[in-house]
Amino acid sequence: MPATIIDSAIFRDMFGTAEMLEVFSDERRTQCYLDIEAALARAQARLGVIPPEAAGEIVRHCDVAKIDMAKLKASTERIGYPVLGVVQQLVAMCGNGLGEWCHWGATTQDITDTATVMQIRAGLAYVERDLFAIADSLAKLAKSHRDTPMAARSNLQQAVPITFGFKCAVLLAAFHRHIERLRQLKPRALVGEFGGAAGNLSSLGGMGLRTQEELMKELGLGQPEIAWHTTHDRIVEVGCFLGLVCGTLGKISMDVKLMMQTEVEEAFEPFHEGRGSSSTMPQKRNPIASAYIHANISVVRQHVAALLDSLVADHERSTGPWEIEWISLPEIFCLTAGALRQTRDMVAGLVVNPPAMRKNLALTGGLVVSEAVMMGLGPTLGRQRAHDLVYDICREVIASGKPFLDLLAAHPEIAPHMTRDQLAPLVDPANYLGQCGEMIDRVLATHAALAR
Amino acid sequence: MPATIIDSAIFRDMFGTAEMLEVFSDERRTQCYLDIEAALARAQARLGVIPPEAAGEIVRHCDVAKIDMAKLKASTERIGYPVLGVVQQLVAMCGNGLGEWCHWGATTQDITDTATVMQIRAGLAYVERDLFAIADSLAKLAKSHRDTPMAARSNLQQAVPITFGFKCAVLLAAFHRHIERLRQLKPRALVGEFGGAAGNLSSLGGMGLRTQEELMKELGLGQPEIAWHTTHDRIVEVGCFLGLVCGTLGKISMDVKLMMQTEVEEAFEPFHEGRGSSSTMPQKRNPIASAYIHANISVVRQHVAALLDSLVADHERSTGPWEIEWISLPEIFCLTAGALRQTRDMVAGLVVNPPAMRKNLALTGGLVVSEAVMMGLGPTLGRQRAHDLVYDICREVIASGKPFLDLLAAHPEIAPHMTRDQLAPLVDPANYLGQCGEMIDRVLATHAALAR
Amino acid sequence: MPATIIDSAIFRDMFGTAEMLEVFSDERRTQCYLDIEAALARAQARLGVIPPEAAGEIVRHCDVAKIDMAKLKASTERIGYPVLGVVQQLVAMCGNGLGEWCHWGATTQDITDTATVMQIRAGLAYVERDLFAIADSLAKLAKSHRDTPMAARSNLQQAVPITFGFKCAVLLAAFHRHIERLRQLKPRALVGEFGGAAGNLSSLGGMGLRTQEELMKELGLGQPEIAWHTTHDRIVEVGCFLGLVCGTLGKISMDVKLMMQTEVEEAFEPFHEGRGSSSTMPQKRNPIASAYIHANISVVRQHVAALLDSLVADHERSTGPWEIEWISLPEIFCLTAGALRQTRDMVAGLVVNPPAMRKNLALTGGLVVSEAVMMGLGPTLGRQRAHDLVYDICREVIASGKPFLDLLAAHPEIAPHMTRDQLAPLVDPANYLGQCGEMIDRVLATHAALAR
Amino acid sequence: MPATIIDSAIFRDMFGTAEMLEVFSDERRTQCYLDIEAALARAQARLGVIPPEAAGEIVRHCDVAKIDMAKLKASTERIGYPVLGVVQQLVAMCGNGLGEWCHWGATTQDITDTATVMQIRAGLAYVERDLFAIADSLAKLAKSHRDTPMAARSNLQQAVPITFGFKCAVLLAAFHRHIERLRQLKPRALVGEFGGAAGNLSSLGGMGLRTQEELMKELGLGQPEIAWHTTHDRIVEVGCFLGLVCGTLGKISMDVKLMMQTEVEEAFEPFHEGRGSSSTMPQKRNPIASAYIHANISVVRQHVAALLDSLVADHERSTGPWEIEWISLPEIFCLTAGALRQTRDMVAGLVVNPPAMRKNLALTGGLVVSEAVMMGLGPTLGRQRAHDLVYDICREVIASGKPFLDLLAAHPEIAPHMTRDQLAPLVDPANYLGQCGEMIDRVLATHAALAR
Repeated sequence: MPATIIDSAIFRDMFGTAEMLEVFSDERRTQCYLDIEAALARAQARLGVIPPEAAGEIVRHCDVAKIDMAKLKASTERIGYPVLGVVQQLVAMCGNGLGEWCHWGATTQDITDTATVMQIRAGLAYVERDLFAIADSLAKLAKSHRDTPMAARSNLQQAVPITFGFKCAVLLAAFHRHIERLRQLKPRALVGEFGGAAGNLSSLGGMGLRTQEELMKELGLGQPEIAWHTTHDRIVEVGCFLGLVCGTLGKISMDVKLMMQTEVEEAFEPFHEGRGSSSTMPQKRNPIASAYIHANISVVRQHVAALLDSLVADHERSTGPWEIEWISLPEIFCLTAGALRQTRDMVAGLVVNPPAMRKNLALTGGLVVSEAVMMGLGPTLGRQRAHDLVYDICREVIASGKPFLDLLAAHPEIAPHMTRDQLAPLVDPANYLGQCGEMIDRVLATHAALAR
Repeated sequence: MPATIIDSAIFRDMFGTAEMLEVFSDERRTQCYLDIEAALARAQARLGVIPPEAAGEIVRHCDVAKIDMAKLKASTERIGYPVLGVVQQLVAMCGNGLGEWCHWGATTQDITDTATVMQIRAGLAYVERDLFAIADSLAKLAKSHRDTPMAARSNLQQAVPITFGFKCAVLLAAFHRHIERLRQLKPRALVGEFGGAAGNLSSLGGMGLRTQEELMKELGLGQPEIAWHTTHDRIVEVGCFLGLVCGTLGKISMDVKLMMQTEVEEAFEPFHEGRGSSSTMPQKRNPIASAYIHANISVVRQHVAALLDSLVADHERSTGPWEIEWISLPEIFCLTAGALRQTRDMVAGLVVNPPAMRKNLALTGGLVVSEAVMMGLGPTLGRQRAHDLVYDICREVIASGKPFLDLLAAHPEIAPHMTRDQLAPLVDPANYLGQCGEMIDRVLATHAALAR
Repeated sequence: MPATIIDSAIFRDMFGTAEMLEVFSDERRTQCYLDIEAALARAQARLGVIPPEAAGEIVRHCDVAKIDMAKLKASTERIGYPVLGVVQQLVAMCGNGLGEWCHWGATTQDITDTATVMQIRAGLAYVERDLFAIADSLAKLAKSHRDTPMAARSNLQQAVPITFGFKCAVLLAAFHRHIERLRQLKPRALVGEFGGAAGNLSSLGGMGLRTQEELMKELGLGQPEIAWHTTHDRIVEVGCFLGLVCGTLGKISMDVKLMMQTEVEEAFEPFHEGRGSSSTMPQKRNPIASAYIHANISVVRQHVAALLDSLVADHERSTGPWEIEWISLPEIFCLTAGALRQTRDMVAGLVVNPPAMRKNLALTGGLVVSEAVMMGLGPTLGRQRAHDLVYDICREVIASGKPFLDLLAAHPEIAPHMTRDQLAPLVDPANYLGQCGEMIDRVLATHAALAR
Repeated sequence: MPATIIDSAIFRDMFGTAEMLEVFSDERRTQCYLDIEAALARAQARLGVIPPEAAGEIVRHCDVAKIDMAKLKASTERIGYPVLGVVQQLVAMCGNGLGEWCHWGATTQDITDTATVMQIRAGLAYVERDLFAIADSLAKLAKSHRDTPMAARSNLQQAVPITFGFKCAVLLAAFHRHIERLRQLKPRALVGEFGGAAGNLSSLGGMGLRTQEELMKELGLGQPEIAWHTTHDRIVEVGCFLGLVCGTLGKISMDVKLMMQTEVEEAFEPFHEGRGSSSTMPQKRNPIASAYIHANISVVRQHVAALLDSLVADHERSTGPWEIEWISLPEIFCLTAGALRQTRDMVAGLVVNPPAMRKNLALTGGLVVSEAVMMGLGPTLGRQRAHDLVYDICREVIASGKPFLDLLAAHPEIAPHMTRDQLAPLVDPANYLGQCGEMIDRVLATHAALAR
């Protein structure tokens, strides 16, 4: 009977994804604990810190299926943390008192933090896959709509013409940056924790750092230069990164829902029977993915602030700040995964409507290329004079409803310099696409060269 | 396999409470939908809008146990909202085509918002109960420790003496304010929604407002003056209120964890066998409740910001902002419930250590009452001169380690005016408790007069 | 050389207002300190706590114009707080050593908090005035456009017809709630602070509470039941309230900027020569106020979260949390004031374009009233059947471009029951405005009855 | 008359720094605009886009001292953005109509964004310098206190012994990560913007990209692959980075203020005459820097969330989201600069009190090394048995007040295996420092190898 939307039996696959929920599930977290205990036993047996037969016995029982979760819940409530409860169950499972050697020299936070890092590793793999998938879809759109004219909008007003491919390529470039960021942060983030009660490995005598090194090799994680129990910037950086990614997803969803408006109709979320239908308004075709993305990322950015708060940790193990991470990190990953999935499907199946784009471009009777006209007149009249003149004519077009071209051709300051035939191409949006194409090509070249 | 800490099979009773999770569960939410559909049918039958036999048939099936949740999940994913899916199942259950009359004139958001308000009503009842419980415990502590001296700390430095009862009464007064706030906001918050697709009740002809009135009577909710689908300040105000409550809980937990420090030991969270024990440091007695409270409220305040974001709704039904509320509101309630429960238990069972309070008061060799000395000398030497003089003597005490009283009595500017015997009471913290007692009594009187 | 946008010599009147900046200026804050010191002197002289001639001398110098601000800056940097520096300058100004009696029994935080409350009082007066001004403008629009049809939009899709007056009345009702909230919170917020170092008035012997009472009378503030140095929920509640108000302002600005879109053109921010013009696109008429409102409220909601953080205060005077309030509270007030002013001007001068509203309503060829048709057919065909049928016909309209009315009239399931003449009024938006008018009237009646 | 604490005439050097305020001042911002216009003129003259004499004339006037700021304020209020107003003034200053060639092909946002990037570059230089300065101080402390024992605290309870150098080295390692992050993000962040109205350089014909390339060379900024007017992740990433840095500063300040407590006294902020003194409690030595740091970073993390919100930009120039950046980015930089400066001074002058550290270590009568005892007994009794046994003895120590060593030596399960003499070294904290030294040395080696 879950209470959060993320875990809701109804909503879970809309706000999150099954695979990411699995990564942050109780089972996976607990299995990570056990994987670490097993790896520690193997490492310490290899180093002669614990008897080999103890390692064998410990490893044999490191399976979450053997853990009594109800009992674990009870011990966690008593102790405040689940690790000791898992260790106690593990100890009890081992024969011949060999369980005594398990968790040797470790502290609760070592296991918890390292498990978190393992979950982050798994989560980031899904994120990276989706970043590439969305980037690929955007690249496809950028290419196929390289020359599809539409109105650029600034301040929600039609500005000048661009191409739809250009809009996609601008977004694609952001994904390239996200992929680069992800690759740079991984070596910082995917580092394990093993330091004992205060991080100085005091309970392992001189064997602490060697154990740490071998343990991290077992787990495929980086070895830390020093304990980081209360300097979790490694983890919070991951949250910030996901926040940045979500910001871009929010931008995409904003544009899509604006383009889907009844009055605009330039692009649509993919249509499936009944998808986005209304119980009372059969004509509607609601944006659905866009709405979830908007909501997810709004909450993600707040969890980023919560994670930043978790950095204000006291002394060698924090009293509350750490638990902020327990709440916020899984939610950031799940909500980001949901937003990525919704975006991925939305972009992959986006229904683009070039005729509507052309129709909207024509709405202003040519005013959308007033800049082109202004620039065209600039060399003759001076930029400022051209600006003022065109500005006045535009206002006359708006007031009178007369065609822009007519007023331009008839104007006493313009007529002496340019004929109607010379003015006509200036008023055609298709002639004023600037360097959209070249820019798209540059971004697509980068995309093609991306290491996978 | 929940992924959030709130729903975690391990952590759910530590970060939240079972009763609040139930309020925001899929089952409860869906049952609320059904309760509203039943109430609507009854109201409309009474008004002659739908046939009485339809109402009878509809009401008979409004039981969440009859809903196929897997089917509901599927339809929700298709449509984007669960209400229509519930209605479709309900329609299908009704015999003789009578189900056609269900949901008559309603829109998805009417049902969803009204259900949310019903959940809020249930949630606030638990909150109010806990506010009173904590206030009662604080009142008890304020009374029993009315005269227990301890050091006040400003900037984490011992300042002047207060009593532990005073500390508790200061907090108690904040709870009185929270209770007042809650009572003021309820009439605003506990108002239903019923307006149809755009809020103007167009599909019910002239019977819309009458239906709305009867429906709200059925549900025990206030009737809105006009639709509020995209002006959810009613709901967000609840979130802000819970944020304020959590702030006070955070303050309590902060003080408790500071008082529990090894070097302070003035108060402790209630002790249960194994509670707060460490896997490696048997001497420890960790604050546990304080840590959860700290974490919960850190996340709650960010959800408040998310809820404020949800207010930026577009037009007559918002595209994303509404869904922010779906994510954040249940989490605010669950995390607040967890923080309230942890605080309630912590305050009710708080272990107070008056000897340690006295011991700490003595730590500064009397410097903690330097203000008393300064004030005592003020009338004779002038406030500023007394301040400067005592300031210098204090620094000499710190530097030399000599007793404050000795240096005071020996000082050439003081000796002529006051004898050692006259100075001695000035240096006794128990003589410098100010009006702690009177203030406590005032707050306790307010407490006794609180309407329940 | 200010660095913040709020104080910027260029932007200050766009993001804030001169009057609110004045409220939170160094001069006003310092004058508040002096007003409190003067009031304290008067109160204490009246009670015989200090000599009357001291009060006279102190009051005479309580003028910020006499304060050396550079010296105050230096002492503030040394001490960490400005109050002591002000007191020192005041003491030095007073003749005959009478300055020694100033600040008698007070602590830095008493003066600072009470000054903050005085600034809040001044700030809330502007806020209340603007809430009324906006509400009045909305009431005027609601009345004059009571029957102006336009499309309601849900999920940014045209849904059903409403009137523009209805849209305004929905917002107006939110302002009524804000005004109610403001009136309820004022008695909690406008309470002074006077408790001495730890809040227990220890330095004033038995005269503490009497002094406090007289001081608050002097200042026109409520007397607290007990010290609240580290329970600032009074103040943070004000921030939450402003956050709620800003949420509504954000909703208004969202609707306005959407209505201003080139493709929609239903309403515009007031036009002034050059306002919203572009350096390169003379045809543009950019929303300006909407953009500032959007930005201001986005930051305000985060400051609300910061203020909530400030509640987590340690012991009797907090070490950092208090200073959060110093940063965030003035910014919340200034940004809210800016958003209120922009909204006030925007709503007062809103240019409404009813013809465009009608034109957009016609865009869907009647589909916007598909609900009306569905409801009209419901009694005959059954709601579910009517829904499914109309849904199919709508999709055919979209696919074929044929008029809705034609397809309805020709449909074999409909034709037997309703003639084209009977169907025609169902397809006219003006016949499907529901109870917009009644709801508007209810809200306007509430507005007329508002106490001013 | 500034209203924000950041710009306050009293507080500005406490919450920010003069140099960072200068970077974000109106003057600097406007000078950046002019520098860009000058660079653009030079670049375009070189490419033959504008006449060389125009470039000469434009460059000659690009000096903020020549700008009429009052006039600029007025035009900014009219237009909504300052760039056009600056250009108009510049045009007017140029002789022979040559000013017409200025701002050729540029749009307001090109200039604004590029100026922001130039301010970021200047701001990051100060940040980088301070990161190194703090790191150097931490390295010095880590080295000189490599072997100074103190109690590690987990959950604010004494845990096991560490050294103060270890505490410093843990923090130092975080600074190494921050420096690495900064170096990785710079090439992404320090990229200019030049795209014209919609980013596609349409107004420059085929010369757009060449102009862009030359302009960025002039400015020493990277050239973007495509316009990024509404994909500001480059800039928001900087905010996230500063948020991470601030988190670490918050951690340091938290530890310092806890160590400064009257009951702990292990370390102090540097003492200056009067610094941190109280107006009424002369014995106090308040943390001052710690409090500002705490407050600044609390607000910074909220601005990070605001910046993430600014990413949700609409279309090709956003309507409000962009202005969020105008508010939040300068504040993030100023508040971070203040926190860095306070931290830098605090760490550089930190007063460390090793005797107090030793005294506190002794507080528990040896219990702080109970883990050592447990580990020492582990090989003999088994880890779990040793744990349970020591746990019980610890509780007996607490209850009885008897020395830990006595009870250990007398215990029937322990006595057979270990003598009192063998047990004694286990109870000495100095013998249980683990691998603090090795870890410190590793971090110091990294520090020595840092590229400057």
